[in-house]
Amino acid sequence: MTVTYSSQVANATFFGFHRLLLRWRGSIYKLLYRECLCPLSSRFFLSDYQKRLFEKLSLYCDQYAAQIPVTFVLGFYVTLVVNRWWNQFVNLPWPDRLMLPISSCVKGKDEHGRLLRRTLMRYTNLTALLIFRSVSNAVCKRFPTMDHVVEAGFMTPEERKVFDNIRSPHLKYWIPAVWFCNLAAKARQEGRIEDSIELHMLLKEMNALRAWCLTLFGYNWVSVPLVYTQVVTLAVYTFFFACLIGRQFLDPAQGYPGHDLDLYIPVFTLLQFFFYAGWLKVAEQLINPFGEDDDDFEVNWVIDRGLQVSMLAVDEMHMNLPHMTKDIYWN
Amino acid sequence: MTVTYSSQVANATFFGFHRLLLRWRGSIYKLLYRECLCPLSSRFFLSDYQKRLFEKLSLYCDQYAAQIPVTFVLGFYVTLVVNRWWNQFVNLPWPDRLMLPISSCVKGKDEHGRLLRRTLMRYTNLTALLIFRSVSNAVCKRFPTMDHVVEAGFMTPEERKVFDNIRSPHLKYWIPAVWFCNLAAKARQEGRIEDSIELHMLLKEMNALRAWCLTLFGYNWVSVPLVYTQVVTLAVYTFFFACLIGRQFLDPAQGYPGHDLDLYIPVFTLLQFFFYAGWLKVAEQLINPFGEDDDDFEVNWVIDRGLQVSMLAVDEMHMNLPHMTKDIYWN
Amino acid sequence: MTVTYSSQVANATFFGFHRLLLRWRGSIYKLLYRECLCPLSSRFFLSDYQKRLFEKLSLYCDQYAAQIPVTFVLGFYVTLVVNRWWNQFVNLPWPDRLMLPISSCVKGKDEHGRLLRRTLMRYTNLTALLIFRSVSNAVCKRFPTMDHVVEAGFMTPEERKVFDNIRSPHLKYWIPAVWFCNLAAKARQEGRIEDSIELHMLLKEMNALRAWCLTLFGYNWVSVPLVYTQVVTLAVYTFFFACLIGRQFLDPAQGYPGHDLDLYIPVFTLLQFFFYAGWLKVAEQLINPFGEDDDDFEVNWVIDRGLQVSMLAVDEMHMNLPHMTKDIYWN
Amino acid sequence: MTVTYSSQVANATFFGFHRLLLRWRGSIYKLLYRECLCPLSSRFFLSDYQKRLFEKLSLYCDQYAAQIPVTFVLGFYVTLVVNRWWNQFVNLPWPDRLMLPISSCVKGKDEHGRLLRRTLMRYTNLTALLIFRSVSNAVCKRFPTMDHVVEAGFMTPEERKVFDNIRSPHLKYWIPAVWFCNLAAKARQEGRIEDSIELHMLLKEMNALRAWCLTLFGYNWVSVPLVYTQVVTLAVYTFFFACLIGRQFLDPAQGYPGHDLDLYIPVFTLLQFFFYAGWLKVAEQLINPFGEDDDDFEVNWVIDRGLQVSMLAVDEMHMNLPHMTKDIYWN
Amino acid sequence: MTVTYSSQVANATFFGFHRLLLRWRGSIYKLLYRECLCPLSSRFFLSDYQKRLFEKLSLYCDQYAAQIPVTFVLGFYVTLVVNRWWNQFVNLPWPDRLMLPISSCVKGKDEHGRLLRRTLMRYTNLTALLIFRSVSNAVCKRFPTMDHVVEAGFMTPEERKVFDNIRSPHLKYWIPAVWFCNLAAKARQEGRIEDSIELHMLLKEMNALRAWCLTLFGYNWVSVPLVYTQVVTLAVYTFFFACLIGRQFLDPAQGYPGHDLDLYIPVFTLLQFFFYAGWLKVAEQLINPFGEDDDDFEVNWVIDRGLQVSMLAVDEMHMNLPHMTKDIYWN
Repeated sequence: MTVTYSSQVANATFFGFHRLLLRWRGSIYKLLYRECLCPLSSRFFLSDYQKRLFEKLSLYCDQYAAQIPVTFVLGFYVTLVVNRWWNQFVNLPWPDRLMLPISSCVKGKDEHGRLLRRTLMRYTNLTALLIFRSVSNAVCKRFPTMDHVVEAGFMTPEERKVFDNIRSPHLKYWIPAVWFCNLAAKARQEGRIEDSIELHMLLKEMNALRAWCLTLFGYNWVSVPLVYTQVVTLAVYTFFFACLIGRQFLDPAQGYPGHDLDLYIPVFTLLQFFFYAGWLKVAEQLINPFGEDDDDFEVNWVIDRGLQVSMLAVDEMHMNLPHMTKDIYWN
Repeated sequence: MTVTYSSQVANATFFGFHRLLLRWRGSIYKLLYRECLCPLSSRFFLSDYQKRLFEKLSLYCDQYAAQIPVTFVLGFYVTLVVNRWWNQFVNLPWPDRLMLPISSCVKGKDEHGRLLRRTLMRYTNLTALLIFRSVSNAVCKRFPTMDHVVEAGFMTPEERKVFDNIRSPHLKYWIPAVWFCNLAAKARQEGRIEDSIELHMLLKEMNALRAWCLTLFGYNWVSVPLVYTQVVTLAVYTFFFACLIGRQFLDPAQGYPGHDLDLYIPVFTLLQFFFYAGWLKVAEQLINPFGEDDDDFEVNWVIDRGLQVSMLAVDEMHMNLPHMTKDIYWN
Repeated sequence: MTVTYSSQVANATFFGFHRLLLRWRGSIYKLLYRECLCPLSSRFFLSDYQKRLFEKLSLYCDQYAAQIPVTFVLGFYVTLVVNRWWNQFVNLPWPDRLMLPISSCVKGKDEHGRLLRRTLMRYTNLTALLIFRSVSNAVCKRFPTMDHVVEAGFMTPEERKVFDNIRSPHLKYWIPAVWFCNLAAKARQEGRIEDSIELHMLLKEMNALRAWCLTLFGYNWVSVPLVYTQVVTLAVYTFFFACLIGRQFLDPAQGYPGHDLDLYIPVFTLLQFFFYAGWLKVAEQLINPFGEDDDDFEVNWVIDRGLQVSMLAVDEMHMNLPHMTKDIYWN
Repeated sequence: MTVTYSSQVANATFFGFHRLLLRWRGSIYKLLYRECLCPLSSRFFLSDYQKRLFEKLSLYCDQYAAQIPVTFVLGFYVTLVVNRWWNQFVNLPWPDRLMLPISSCVKGKDEHGRLLRRTLMRYTNLTALLIFRSVSNAVCKRFPTMDHVVEAGFMTPEERKVFDNIRSPHLKYWIPAVWFCNLAAKARQEGRIEDSIELHMLLKEMNALRAWCLTLFGYNWVSVPLVYTQVVTLAVYTFFFACLIGRQFLDPAQGYPGHDLDLYIPVFTLLQFFFYAGWLKVAEQLINPFGEDDDDFEVNWVIDRGLQVSMLAVDEMHMNLPHMTKDIYWN
Repeated sequence: MTVTYSSQVANATFFGFHRLLLRWRGSIYKLLYRECLCPLSSRFFLSDYQKRLFEKLSLYCDQYAAQIPVTFVLGFYVTLVVNRWWNQFVNLPWPDRLMLPISSCVKGKDEHGRLLRRTLMRYTNLTALLIFRSVSNAVCKRFPTMDHVVEAGFMTPEERKVFDNIRSPHLKYWIPAVWFCNLAAKARQEGRIEDSIELHMLLKEMNALRAWCLTLFGYNWVSVPLVYTQVVTLAVYTFFFACLIGRQFLDPAQGYPGHDLDLYIPVFTLLQFFFYAGWLKVAEQLINPFGEDDDDFEVNWVIDRGLQVSMLAVDEMHMNLPHMTKDIYWN
């Protein structure tokens, strides 16, 4: 479920983003509250000698925790992940791209014409659906088998059979795209598409949509290198554990410099962890934007909207124009 | 209202940007003066013992404030927001894109020709308007209902009826685009557009404009992940409160190192907050560039200009050419 | 005036960039020498008590100056400005884009053909000139009124009249572009352009040029948010004044730690200011690349070259081919 | 072998990335375990005097190790390498680009038609294969000579002969592309391709594929400047050796400040090295993404898939459409 | 000479990049060894009093050297330069772009057809050569006058005359491009190019190549702003001299804190300088990638390869297809 909050931050105001701090869905609190419970339960069961040893360890950790280069690694890593995330959004195969040319180029208000347009449009939606099934958990849950795809009306049983007969060990999302192009070529021969230019436009747009699908597949296939993710994760959690030990409030009676105050809860360490872990969570959410996180794309909605809108545009609205009248600025 | 100051910084001069420091509209002072009033009113009502405790707390805060990684988080975050902001500007659906081909490709100086060109142009403007209504507060205030759109002349009452009859639970900004394409196809059949190539150009440009609209919709739908915004906001405000306590001027009589001077107003803390909060305000202003902030795009102006200019270009200026004469460099 | 030094740094050599350090035009020295005179004239007129107080203030400033996050703010800001600067360069509307298709697609070596090609080319140059006038100080100075444009031969008096009769409260740079498209459509009807494909190419290139113009207009209209510029400027100058006070060479006799040496001139403070202010000056120069700074684009040259070159290409060189002979590698 | 882990991080959960920390293939452990064995075997064989000297050296190293600017150099360098890596992925010459237009534009279900489509498609795959051979070690191992290419069915013996007869000292990957274009032109003359528009589409797509190949060649030819790689590598390893000496646990009896605890294993130094070296390893893996690292692209799979899928699409599936029936949303 | 080392880093291995550290050509050692000789020859000729003063100066320099913000300035600057460098590579005008369409669209195996194709191709190569001459030192040395261009076979003496007769004070690289377009238009009239679509493709590709040339010219004309380069160079060298003085090993007998060890050679200072200067050298090499540095593009090779390959493709290979036979996967 995408978390949309644009309209709430339309204007910059007094403590502008403060309203955002109180939201739960998609928030940092929801993501981190479990991790934050850990540090609160230590240091109650130690003997006196253990305490002195622990304090030495603590000072040692404190000294070196600062040397773990969390900030930069995180900064560059999150930037990389955010860029990939947005590029995937840009490459979502919306069928809108094809509905305008199909609606205006494939002629005929009779049944055959309607069937042609609807089938072409359906192939477009089917291509998108098949690639979404392979990259998105949420879509895969909704359409676990091809039967569900047929049931949902994206495919007819006849097509299902032809589809199954095409033997390929590889992903078959491109099959409806090939059907689309061949059907368009056939429509051209039948004269439903009047012109090679118009056919050309349809093929070009379909090829662009197929390229988007391939790009989505590519992002799913080639992830951010595992080493990078591991380096960043290790850096954040090691830093966290080092701080957990190093930032204990030591017994003020021992007179360690800078440890005059015993607050029982290491507020700043918690906050610091909060920031770093929150930053890492940004990456965790966005590294696969097709999951079911609060901030992931609502791909199922994209599929439903695509089918509904594009069918309307190519069928009901085909050559169904409002009467032209002069606008109010005429002369 | 967009704040334009390009012409004032055309040349780099002595203390070049200083003139910009004295502006109020769109300035950092206007955005921050309320936040700055807060820190000035503390530390006047404490007993002696409380003062000592407060001083310990203060030193503790001072020590750890430096550990909050404000700078980098802000740097990367603001860069992300600024990029999104500019990309949205680049994707504004200016109707200019279509006015040139419509003016030269749709023939006929008679009334029907004029009506055709004006209607095509109006559909373009209407598409842009509908998407602006859904992303921009300012436009939404100006056109709260479809009645206002009709009144403003972007839509005729006939079109309004057809528009309302198309049932879709989703945003309907694409409807005028479909009308446009169908009307263009009809004009081709009537011979008003002489050539498939010219029709193709119109459809392609319209499809590009529709893609821009979808992109704007996408930016509005999928915001910067909420977690990221929360992490950054929390970092800045926590840092601020830690400094507020930590950078108090302690009683010089107590001899804390580095606290020899009591200035009553923590100048540098204020300045530091000023920078970080100002940087955050950049993000707050730009995260939704369609609001009513000083730095937001003047979308209402874009709409008005689009209608006025494009109507001129396709109607009055159609085939209304100045007489060709030899230029002064002839031979 | 653009400062070109590419050829001087073609090869990396011993202390490779050192030659660049001795240049005056477009150099950091030229930009900063005035600012550098300020800090040299302080600390000569204080009583003894004032001196002690001043020293306390100085130590305090020194301690906190380091906390102003100048480096990162500057780094991200300058990167943003440099990107905008280069994008504006990339969007300069060179008429070269249209001279090739006009030269080969608009037929006829007779006077009418020549007139047609020259007029089309002139409209292209005029569009570019009009947008340059609105964004560039230097061009605006050269062509303060439309009379100067007519005088310089970019527009004929007939066109001037038609141009003035078109009433629009908005910038009118798009008018010659509409003329261009209509004139091309007319040439197609007259058979001077033989083919719709060729007409299509002309219209497409013109539309692309118009898009470039709109982009330039956009960069001029929507500047870098004022807040950002103010934050950065304030950070640099505050830092500077803090250092100015904080880095004074204190009386070594008072035994402040780290102040054993009295050099009279705070060399490193000056250097540090030099770097930060120099970095900021980079931004000041580039934020409006159409001014008259040493590093700004020489737009007037672009205009002159465009007219001269493109007229040559479409008129004198039209179908004026060298005789084809076999090259030396034939067989 | 590409390491795909997208589906495992679809949702952000409790200690979300922790599962990734336990993987071996493509992991940081596999890459670094050898480097980590080095530091563990020092400091056991020194005399007392040597120990004191060693301690001085150690303190000195510790002091200056922090001055080596590892973090930023690495951050910028890795960002550069990651960008290049992804751009190379984006430019992989998938034959999908051509299979849609070939399938719908090259007519004829008879043997000659099939032969034509299959040959065109084979030339596409051959172009991709030839460029892969020149950039990828893995492909080069699989196809060490042109004989292997012929054997694998990408080339016929006749083509091999013609290919060998073309004398050029340069890489010959462009030869099948020229064949493709000439064959397409011939098919146009024979009427197998009915229209210039369709021929144009084929040529344009082929030219785009050739441009991708050239880009891959360019990335292989012009690496990241050697100096940059050397600077980064030297920085990381020098830093490592400085830490190795500087972070020894000194004899606590000597009372060096901050050396109260003797842990025998410098945990934090190891960790720090782990991060920096891991980050560098990211670059090492990605700098040539066509090798045989765990994270490199599986180019051999791309080649096989391309041939299988594209042959299916242009031969078996050509004009082999499922029967059109009304979909379930009809009316 | 481009330094290619991709194949040596195909796989990440034990101390993976170590092999690269031992290369001389294009290496950091070759670039920096001269600079490194400087610091080794100081501090041998001072009297005792001078020594004490020198030590004070040294401590002072050491303290402030850290304040020069070398790292970030360098990081952002090098990133800018590297981006420009790669963009220039991407815009190299390879004639490959045109050889495919020319080979398949310009008909006729007779002498006139061959002459036409070869001449068109030669004009393409000539355009590229002329722009290379104006941006690259290496090409300029090889072709110092137009005579050399004629001699090398890129231009015929007839063309030379026509070229010289065209009077323009500006760079004339666009002249062969205009010839190309006019010649193509003439070939269309003669029927050698059968179709406007094909002519259109040729003109479009030529226009794209011309745009690349203009881009290269633009990169050469508008360098990285001089101020930026000066700021960075000054920062690195000032830092270097400050370290040179500040990091001297002071007489341990004077008991300055942190100066217990006298190593005679300031290893870490040298290393640190090594990194910063090496990083700057990356920029020095890449800022003009058309020079004769080890890492510059081998433009002369690009020119020769272009001519050889493209002539082959359009002449010898034109319609010289291998006999089509069934591939081994037929059925």
